[in-house]
Amino acid sequence: MFIGAQVSLYPMTSDFVGVITSGLQAIDPYRGDLRIETDDISTLMVGAPEPLFGAIRDLFAAAARRPEHVTMHVTLSRGCPGEPDDPTCRCETLQRAQHQSLSERQALAAEAVQAAPDLGVGIDVQFSLYVMGEGDHMAEIYGCIDFLKNRGTFLKSKNFCTRLRGDAGAVFETLRQAFLRFGPAEGHVTIDLTASANSPSPR
Amino acid sequence: MFIGAQVSLYPMTSDFVGVITSGLQAIDPYRGDLRIETDDISTLMVGAPEPLFGAIRDLFAAAARRPEHVTMHVTLSRGCPGEPDDPTCRCETLQRAQHQSLSERQALAAEAVQAAPDLGVGIDVQFSLYVMGEGDHMAEIYGCIDFLKNRGTFLKSKNFCTRLRGDAGAVFETLRQAFLRFGPAEGHVTIDLTASANSPSPR
Repeated sequence: MFIGAQVSLYPMTSDFVGVITSGLQAIDPYRGDLRIETDDISTLMVGAPEPLFGAIRDLFAAAARRPEHVTMHVTLSRGCPGEPDDPTCRCETLQRAQHQSLSERQALAAEAVQAAPDLGVGIDVQFSLYVMGEGDHMAEIYGCIDFLKNRGTFLKSKNFCTRLRGDAGAVFETLRQAFLRFGPAEGHVTIDLTASANSPSPR
Repeated sequence: MFIGAQVSLYPMTSDFVGVITSGLQAIDPYRGDLRIETDDISTLMVGAPEPLFGAIRDLFAAAARRPEHVTMHVTLSRGCPGEPDDPTCRCETLQRAQHQSLSERQALAAEAVQAAPDLGVGIDVQFSLYVMGEGDHMAEIYGCIDFLKNRGTFLKSKNFCTRLRGDAGAVFETLRQAFLRFGPAEGHVTIDLTASANSPSPR
């Protein structure tokens, strides 16, 4: 299994380099658990979902605590057949999911969101979950949407994606659960995610 | 068939509202052919691939002609089973693709990129193509990668995505061909796309 993300932070300010540089300090605690490589478009993070989502959440929360409008785009992937197996990506939640029904996974996902830490930073997110390969991919996607609609972080459905709103702790835990609990445990699952904070647009 | 995109433009300047507003003028010629709706995170564009990719390309090219660093994120989708049929999205290229082999589609895609207009704006792109549903989705993705590698717009492969570089005309035609010619013609295909121009990072 190979799990990782391409992450890009976009501060809408002329001091965007300063915001990105200070935001990157927030991922320092995760550097021992993740492989991190940056180029001119995005930062690759490879590792298990626990530190991976922690690093992405804390990076965005740090930038969102500043006054400027900031957005982030993340391409998340697990189980891509074109990537090598990587033991650092091992995930017990995924291994157990192989033997759990859709309703069991929905209940466990709900518990995890309930237990998420409160970071004191309100954010907006929209994302799409993609399930590739054999099997009824839409059944898993609709199962995920059912899970999402009953969370406090659900805002609305849009064409091609779902909107979340809430504290960064609960929102990123919702995303982690969507990524891990839906779609085959050994399958190829991706998320296309946009986060936004401090937007001047009317909400 | 339902075809569309969620589009977000991110100018890395304190005058980001001004850049977005002036960029939006570039899509005026396409408003008659597309359904366009904006909220605080993204702009939905629904319609046939010809005006859809034209509008997205011209929006980004207009912003990239300015001096500021600017990025754009686009979530593209065709054939999502959860969306209604929309006659304005009808696409002859897709209809003909049902009866064409992979190698025929690769050749037609290459011809289209060759004939793309030169807009005089250099840009960088990274994107992922997702093919959902039954069938060997990786065969179509590898077929698309073969097509990409032989184009002048190919830069390199990265984890989870492919990098393109070149004139906005050729790059967006490459993307349009990837979206239309690979994956089942009646299937559910999406693209997760990031474009970048005027980045201060070393290339």
